[in-house]
Amino acid sequence: MPRVSQDQLDARRREILAGARTCFARHGYEGATVRRLEDEIGLSRGAIFHHFRDKESLFLAVAEDDAAAMVATVAEHGLVQVMRDLLGRAAEPPVEATGEPEVAGWLGTQLEVSRRLRTDPEFAKRWAARAEAISAATRERLVRQREAGVLRADVPVDVLAQFLELAYDGLVLHLATGRPADDLEAVLDLVEETVRRR
Amino acid sequence: MPRVSQDQLDARRREILAGARTCFARHGYEGATVRRLEDEIGLSRGAIFHHFRDKESLFLAVAEDDAAAMVATVAEHGLVQVMRDLLGRAAEPPVEATGEPEVAGWLGTQLEVSRRLRTDPEFAKRWAARAEAISAATRERLVRQREAGVLRADVPVDVLAQFLELAYDGLVLHLATGRPADDLEAVLDLVEETVRRR
Repeated sequence: MPRVSQDQLDARRREILAGARTCFARHGYEGATVRRLEDEIGLSRGAIFHHFRDKESLFLAVAEDDAAAMVATVAEHGLVQVMRDLLGRAAEPPVEATGEPEVAGWLGTQLEVSRRLRTDPEFAKRWAARAEAISAATRERLVRQREAGVLRADVPVDVLAQFLELAYDGLVLHLATGRPADDLEAVLDLVEETVRRR
Repeated sequence: MPRVSQDQLDARRREILAGARTCFARHGYEGATVRRLEDEIGLSRGAIFHHFRDKESLFLAVAEDDAAAMVATVAEHGLVQVMRDLLGRAAEPPVEATGEPEVAGWLGTQLEVSRRLRTDPEFAKRWAARAEAISAATRERLVRQREAGVLRADVPVDVLAQFLELAYDGLVLHLATGRPADDLEAVLDLVEETVRRR
């Protein structure tokens, strides 16, 4: 009997997550039916839900994947770089299904779900854990920057971290509601300058 | 035959809007059924929908009412003051139905609808008009402040306006997703300082 290696399992999992991310971005959370997930991923529902319990688990796995990538970028380059990356992805050509860049659809889906499940404490807990990991990475990087003398010294690290998070949330809402992102580069420069040593 | 004066009509309209705002904040857009709207407003559906075509019109009227109040505050005190007011309302005791302050529920409802109706161009247009009025008021005030010499001079007014709007959007998303608002006063001080002349 042939055995499936861990590498093969991981590859399959990544394949499912990539297709699911696209499907959620294009159709929204509600609109991403099992049929559409099958089409986009290119696998049967049996194969998909062998790896993930249900649609909500699949969505959360995609979101957790993104959060892990974001924590890595924050740790190395900071939250402003994450914002610049988002802005770059918002400048990509719109996908036909939605008329907007895929990242806008994806952020919109995250808002949709975070709103819809406000009354689901279990989901809220998993959501909060993702935010907490990103927040911790942001603070750790700021502490290192303060030690290196490149951060302004007259405002507590905690306030600077929350300031960056506020700007990040603002960018998410801006892009997720499909507003133009044309001039936001200069705004992010201002955000970055605000936390830097003069 | 008794005639209803314009004052009486206006008073009735305000009464409906106040009850509807509470109802939307407590139950979300979908959860605010006609029955619940009747209970909260204290009028029959006939009386309510004599003044507003349907639930969506009622919701938009509440939102437009808020936008008008916000434009007035921005013109007189600036967008940072609007943010400070939001923060103050987020510190009010939670309402029983939702376990969160009423303003959080109301902002959440606005997100819910702005997301859900992303595919409704007519709604999107009315929504964009509200945002445009607030944006114009923000820019006008910044221009006056620059003329008065209290605004920093090394960054274009347009960038400063978008920076303030980004912070405002961030605050809305933060509060609407029910996250704690404890330390945001200091963050708003930093936002305000960033646009001021040193």
